[in-house]
Amino acid sequence: MTKPEEFIGSIEFDHRLAPFDLRASIVHARMLVRQGIIAPSAGRKIVAGLTGLLKDVEKGKRIPPAEDIHFAIEKALFRRIGPVAGWLHTARSRNDQVVTAFRMYVRDRIDHIDGLLCRLERVFLVSAEKQMGVVMPGHTHLQPAQPILLSHLLMAYAWMFQRDRERLVDVRKRVNVLPLGAAALAGTSFPIDPAWVARQLGFGRILDNSLDAVSDRDFTVEFLSALSLIMMHVSRWAEELVIGSNPNLDFVWIADPFVSGSSIMPQKRNPDVAELMRGKTGRVYGDLMAMLTLLKAQPLAYNRDMQEDKPPVFDAVDLVESVLDVCIPMVETLRWNAEKLADACRHGFLSATDVADELVRRGLPFRQSHGLVAGVVAYARERGLSLEDVPLPVWKKQSPRFDRWIYDVLSVSKAASHRTSPGGTSPVRVKEQIRRLKRMI
Amino acid sequence: MTKPEEFIGSIEFDHRLAPFDLRASIVHARMLVRQGIIAPSAGRKIVAGLTGLLKDVEKGKRIPPAEDIHFAIEKALFRRIGPVAGWLHTARSRNDQVVTAFRMYVRDRIDHIDGLLCRLERVFLVSAEKQMGVVMPGHTHLQPAQPILLSHLLMAYAWMFQRDRERLVDVRKRVNVLPLGAAALAGTSFPIDPAWVARQLGFGRILDNSLDAVSDRDFTVEFLSALSLIMMHVSRWAEELVIGSNPNLDFVWIADPFVSGSSIMPQKRNPDVAELMRGKTGRVYGDLMAMLTLLKAQPLAYNRDMQEDKPPVFDAVDLVESVLDVCIPMVETLRWNAEKLADACRHGFLSATDVADELVRRGLPFRQSHGLVAGVVAYARERGLSLEDVPLPVWKKQSPRFDRWIYDVLSVSKAASHRTSPGGTSPVRVKEQIRRLKRMI
Amino acid sequence: MTKPEEFIGSIEFDHRLAPFDLRASIVHARMLVRQGIIAPSAGRKIVAGLTGLLKDVEKGKRIPPAEDIHFAIEKALFRRIGPVAGWLHTARSRNDQVVTAFRMYVRDRIDHIDGLLCRLERVFLVSAEKQMGVVMPGHTHLQPAQPILLSHLLMAYAWMFQRDRERLVDVRKRVNVLPLGAAALAGTSFPIDPAWVARQLGFGRILDNSLDAVSDRDFTVEFLSALSLIMMHVSRWAEELVIGSNPNLDFVWIADPFVSGSSIMPQKRNPDVAELMRGKTGRVYGDLMAMLTLLKAQPLAYNRDMQEDKPPVFDAVDLVESVLDVCIPMVETLRWNAEKLADACRHGFLSATDVADELVRRGLPFRQSHGLVAGVVAYARERGLSLEDVPLPVWKKQSPRFDRWIYDVLSVSKAASHRTSPGGTSPVRVKEQIRRLKRMI
Amino acid sequence: MTKPEEFIGSIEFDHRLAPFDLRASIVHARMLVRQGIIAPSAGRKIVAGLTGLLKDVEKGKRIPPAEDIHFAIEKALFRRIGPVAGWLHTARSRNDQVVTAFRMYVRDRIDHIDGLLCRLERVFLVSAEKQMGVVMPGHTHLQPAQPILLSHLLMAYAWMFQRDRERLVDVRKRVNVLPLGAAALAGTSFPIDPAWVARQLGFGRILDNSLDAVSDRDFTVEFLSALSLIMMHVSRWAEELVIGSNPNLDFVWIADPFVSGSSIMPQKRNPDVAELMRGKTGRVYGDLMAMLTLLKAQPLAYNRDMQEDKPPVFDAVDLVESVLDVCIPMVETLRWNAEKLADACRHGFLSATDVADELVRRGLPFRQSHGLVAGVVAYARERGLSLEDVPLPVWKKQSPRFDRWIYDVLSVSKAASHRTSPGGTSPVRVKEQIRRLKRMI
Repeated sequence: MTKPEEFIGSIEFDHRLAPFDLRASIVHARMLVRQGIIAPSAGRKIVAGLTGLLKDVEKGKRIPPAEDIHFAIEKALFRRIGPVAGWLHTARSRNDQVVTAFRMYVRDRIDHIDGLLCRLERVFLVSAEKQMGVVMPGHTHLQPAQPILLSHLLMAYAWMFQRDRERLVDVRKRVNVLPLGAAALAGTSFPIDPAWVARQLGFGRILDNSLDAVSDRDFTVEFLSALSLIMMHVSRWAEELVIGSNPNLDFVWIADPFVSGSSIMPQKRNPDVAELMRGKTGRVYGDLMAMLTLLKAQPLAYNRDMQEDKPPVFDAVDLVESVLDVCIPMVETLRWNAEKLADACRHGFLSATDVADELVRRGLPFRQSHGLVAGVVAYARERGLSLEDVPLPVWKKQSPRFDRWIYDVLSVSKAASHRTSPGGTSPVRVKEQIRRLKRMI
Repeated sequence: MTKPEEFIGSIEFDHRLAPFDLRASIVHARMLVRQGIIAPSAGRKIVAGLTGLLKDVEKGKRIPPAEDIHFAIEKALFRRIGPVAGWLHTARSRNDQVVTAFRMYVRDRIDHIDGLLCRLERVFLVSAEKQMGVVMPGHTHLQPAQPILLSHLLMAYAWMFQRDRERLVDVRKRVNVLPLGAAALAGTSFPIDPAWVARQLGFGRILDNSLDAVSDRDFTVEFLSALSLIMMHVSRWAEELVIGSNPNLDFVWIADPFVSGSSIMPQKRNPDVAELMRGKTGRVYGDLMAMLTLLKAQPLAYNRDMQEDKPPVFDAVDLVESVLDVCIPMVETLRWNAEKLADACRHGFLSATDVADELVRRGLPFRQSHGLVAGVVAYARERGLSLEDVPLPVWKKQSPRFDRWIYDVLSVSKAASHRTSPGGTSPVRVKEQIRRLKRMI
Repeated sequence: MTKPEEFIGSIEFDHRLAPFDLRASIVHARMLVRQGIIAPSAGRKIVAGLTGLLKDVEKGKRIPPAEDIHFAIEKALFRRIGPVAGWLHTARSRNDQVVTAFRMYVRDRIDHIDGLLCRLERVFLVSAEKQMGVVMPGHTHLQPAQPILLSHLLMAYAWMFQRDRERLVDVRKRVNVLPLGAAALAGTSFPIDPAWVARQLGFGRILDNSLDAVSDRDFTVEFLSALSLIMMHVSRWAEELVIGSNPNLDFVWIADPFVSGSSIMPQKRNPDVAELMRGKTGRVYGDLMAMLTLLKAQPLAYNRDMQEDKPPVFDAVDLVESVLDVCIPMVETLRWNAEKLADACRHGFLSATDVADELVRRGLPFRQSHGLVAGVVAYARERGLSLEDVPLPVWKKQSPRFDRWIYDVLSVSKAASHRTSPGGTSPVRVKEQIRRLKRMI
Repeated sequence: MTKPEEFIGSIEFDHRLAPFDLRASIVHARMLVRQGIIAPSAGRKIVAGLTGLLKDVEKGKRIPPAEDIHFAIEKALFRRIGPVAGWLHTARSRNDQVVTAFRMYVRDRIDHIDGLLCRLERVFLVSAEKQMGVVMPGHTHLQPAQPILLSHLLMAYAWMFQRDRERLVDVRKRVNVLPLGAAALAGTSFPIDPAWVARQLGFGRILDNSLDAVSDRDFTVEFLSALSLIMMHVSRWAEELVIGSNPNLDFVWIADPFVSGSSIMPQKRNPDVAELMRGKTGRVYGDLMAMLTLLKAQPLAYNRDMQEDKPPVFDAVDLVESVLDVCIPMVETLRWNAEKLADACRHGFLSATDVADELVRRGLPFRQSHGLVAGVVAYARERGLSLEDVPLPVWKKQSPRFDRWIYDVLSVSKAASHRTSPGGTSPVRVKEQIRRLKRMI
């Protein structure tokens, strides 16, 4: 049976804001003294009390609970320094205080997640360098399409995570705006100095409009959208591993800590970590949807609904961080099966495009070249042959333009190395990618 | 830093399945004995051990943690009764075991939520009976439209919650199907008796297909969809209260435990509980979206992604239960301001339709009647008059069909009592509604 | 540049409601005459006019556009029969009129989709009967787990679609409630007979509360949730085909009309239809989310937001119907590669569980049996052997309990046929499933 | 009955890509000539043919339909210039071609929406300047909280739309990357020059990795997320209007083209446009969810699912553009009721905070001051008085610190003008805001 006072409370989930609230309060108290709004002696006691609490929190001590973490801190301060604590709340309100701590928290997690993404990129980069010789079938529609370098595939994921980091930079700009000074909704008549507070707390800008400052939660949507994209990328990567570690393909071997056995089937090596990475994607999407729904049609300014801005953000942060935590060592310890990857190339008619391209170079429009090669592919498939095994007369019957040169073109590794267009899969281009991304991170 | 073994684990959130898993395991063990699959002596020890654990859990003791609650219970059983515990896992797998406990949990919460909804309906019913005389403006487009009984409004919400209960009945049918016996995915060669197990555990049916049994999570989507609708209804009701308790309208007074003051504005009575009820809606929607995303494109049979089926369900259950817990006493203690509600009717030209209807009765097609009354309304609005204040000559100028009878028609309370069509707002119809719903619950 | 009047209008998308609106209006007019509310002569002209319009619409003629289809019909009626048309709108409002037509439309599409699902089930049933001998690897975690019958997999999908149909039956009950008579929001003072109208139009019940009747859109959410589950099932099936038609697995061949070539790779057979079925899933999920968001926190009664209830429903209906339209012939024309499926069983140590189960039968607790077999699997995997190829002494070294009987147990097809538990994969159980489902549809 | 070929097609919705595809193809053809890949004569014919088609499209002519707009254009080109058209497809694939046109389309709509937002901001700015003297109750929790300037409220919305524009700038950077040259997935062996193509088409960068280039749809999610935030802001504004135009509040009058009457209630002025703006929000959220779901767990590279990237984007673009189209003139023509707004301030104890703040200035800690004022508010509320009406002795009984100065402090307009902190509601600060935003746009 939930009681109203429990229902209204948020202490269950907002404890993690404690260090941010304390730091912001310390600076607020110092500003009040600087501006002559409260007495220096009161300010000193408050700053000392808050600093003590902050040390406790940093040591892992819990502030005794109250309705929310901000009341809890206020009460703890009263217990520690007595009624002089009452001066701290001058020239601010719960509405601007809470969102200040929340923005500091989000900024902090952006920086942490950015660090994790950076480490993940490096793991992909190192792996791409190590696997440079390995050729594999590139897929479209999950059908083998053209031979590519494994390193090219790994770099594709590295670029996704690089984009995620660029997005976080953009989000951070709009997170890093100080709302303190908006008070309840309209600003205050005390001569506060938000610009000084912002500098002390590392905020890039201060509020433009107090109504907006207490009710703007755009930054949570932007952040959750960026986290959703990270999870989407991770889920794509997870899918590669789940499919590639199927023993009938056997492209990649996932190290023991990242697979698990079955309680009933002794032979199983289940890619549980990859599956869970994929499975957790939906929750982050759900968190984004929760936040958008929350904000829909809220008239200005602050409404209590906004207290519910925290659970989706905390949930998504925990999920993304744990996913990246396990993804990094998992990628690091993958073992790729170069032999199987090469075999798979031979079965898939992967060089068919190259023959068509060569016809174009020899003067036939693309659409016609494509048709001619498709005919030979159909012949080979019916008979269970690879293109290399199709005898020259069959080719020639299809068109006199075909000749011995086709056997050169059909080599899989040559096919990969010929694709030298910018961003292409040829080793020279992949090495260029690696160098470029290294410079960027 | 999350480690792979933590990442894979679910013990953090699945502890609440313990009593369900224990009950199902006790019946499973008894079935294994009945069918001669394990020795009676082994069965006796296992049942005794599990029963002891169940008692502990019911007393609030925690099973020492392991990867998940099911492993935790297995280990606890080994510690308690030794290696004979190993026989329990015969003829079942984690895949069918987990979803059995989960279905039992969902069934249990459906029954609990149904009880809460029933209590909420009663509160609306009692309130509807008590407020029978009170007339208020019925709104469309948030504009006053026609006079209605407050009881009619209250009953509209009672019917919504009645529909929610009917939906839960339908969902429960598809939740209450026993998957145990599917083993890992393909059934088992042991001569088990799932029908007997189902009877002992109160399941209405047993599995049709073992692949489907271990991978079907439709019931979670159905359940979350039903919970989303409950929250949607609650959010509509919350909106009525947030708007109606605005002091410029002052239609309703929310009791003290459900409002809160402001840290900075001493005069405020903020409808926090109603706002949070509204604000929590998005999270349940998000949980639904998370589950749908999770299940998309999962090939058969069980994939580890499905472990993530629990957090959204647990989150939504906790939210809905706590919302209903506080909604019941909040509705019970509302004080409606009959005087203000009546006043509001007078300002809104609420009887205009009734004049138009009377013209129809007197032989004019509806569209024309409507046009004539609209003319008088425009006249009154421009001059800040109510329709009663418009002098008869003005009406007659608009059309000679108007006469003294209009003043009879314009009475607000008559207007409400005239709407005697089935489901209409006249007292006789509203009383009928109350009787009908009472019989249903 | 959208103009306000275009913005408010819905004629662009609601034309498909025309036949439903016309049928409901014809019955409404007849009821008005029966109840003595309008003159028989007026009623006759109106019914004749509407019947003429209905015939036109059924022939494919478009009603000339107006703000919405209901105004368009009203205007068309005026043009056809003159001012007597004005009587039709007596004792109803746009609010109850629109939702009546919309409920009729949804009911109609439920029946149509139910028919498509029934046909799809039959195709799976027929296919399951035809493929009865074929053994394939059953997967968990996309890893081969145990041998199953292909028919068992096909039946798993048939049961999903059967559940979808049961859900539609439940949704239909709550769709099929007549709201007509609620008028704008409060009922009417005319002596209407909604029960008679309901009988003529095939509605199962009439409104309980007029406020609820004009603002209840629960049925759209329920319907979209049921459609989302259908799409989720379809997306799972699509995934099976996309993976199974990869040439390195080559489990299934999709017929030509359902695959497409590549503009650049002559050898490709891309499973486009399956991919698009999977890809369209998100849109139906999005339609559900749109509707839930729309309804959040709408105070009673009707708000114009509700006009937006139609685009998501229409979009989802079109998507689901087209997906089922193409899924039926695609499943019908699949060619399963029995040889490849059998091969895949041999590589996956798929009978390992059966050896462990046999040890249990011979008196060893399950957890120990599992451990012993896991040892042999590890030995075989390292050496690239199948379990059949592991020499007996190796087994015996692991445990003296192993003996010649293991070679019997290791047969893949026997493994499938031994799983005779209810819902299991043995032929006898799968045939039982087929008979049961046939009786149900 | 949908046929497979219709199901696979996208011509129904992708026609709007025609001008973008044509422009990109013209540049591609010119590049092929420049690089010596195709003959100048062929290039000339192709460019002439495409230019002709582009002119037709710009005049509103439709390309005769084919499976998709790209095939349609190809066919049209063949009809116009014969088989030489076949050379155009050299060194590109449908996969990179489609996403190039799509990125150009999105970039184009970003620029258009940015223009609309800019116009909307100006309307708010102009309105804020015009209403500078008007004081109104600022709300938190939809309860009157403190007096604010109407201009301050208007500026809060202007800042939201300014943030929306900043977000679009960030999104545009990641949209404006040329994928052409990726070919099917792996790049091409032709000596293409993507950097030159990018310059001609106004792209800021070229692809880094061909696999990523054909399968990256992050930009659509980012764009839909930005559009969702725009709609969220619009829905907040719509809510202000729906509530504020309720005749019991009568804060604002919406001009005739943006309201509508009722078919049954002649007195109604329904804020339909505002309601629909609010109601359409869910659809854009749904479009975002559709896209995220679509992309989840797609292995590289291109899968046909991605064809479904277009409907959600097109739908959201159309919705947002039409909403902004009507929002601009609606805001422009609003009439605010300064008298009613001022009245509402007097009823709400809106200056209570100011009295508490003054006590702080006179040396009492905030928490105590707050408590003292709350006592007087309780007294006044019980007796139906405003704070001005409470006699001095009552104040003094509460605390001897109160004196005549309170009547000065209680003036509503002074209360607003005292809040001079940065971003506060005092006229000087609001004027500062207006100047700042003007400089920015």
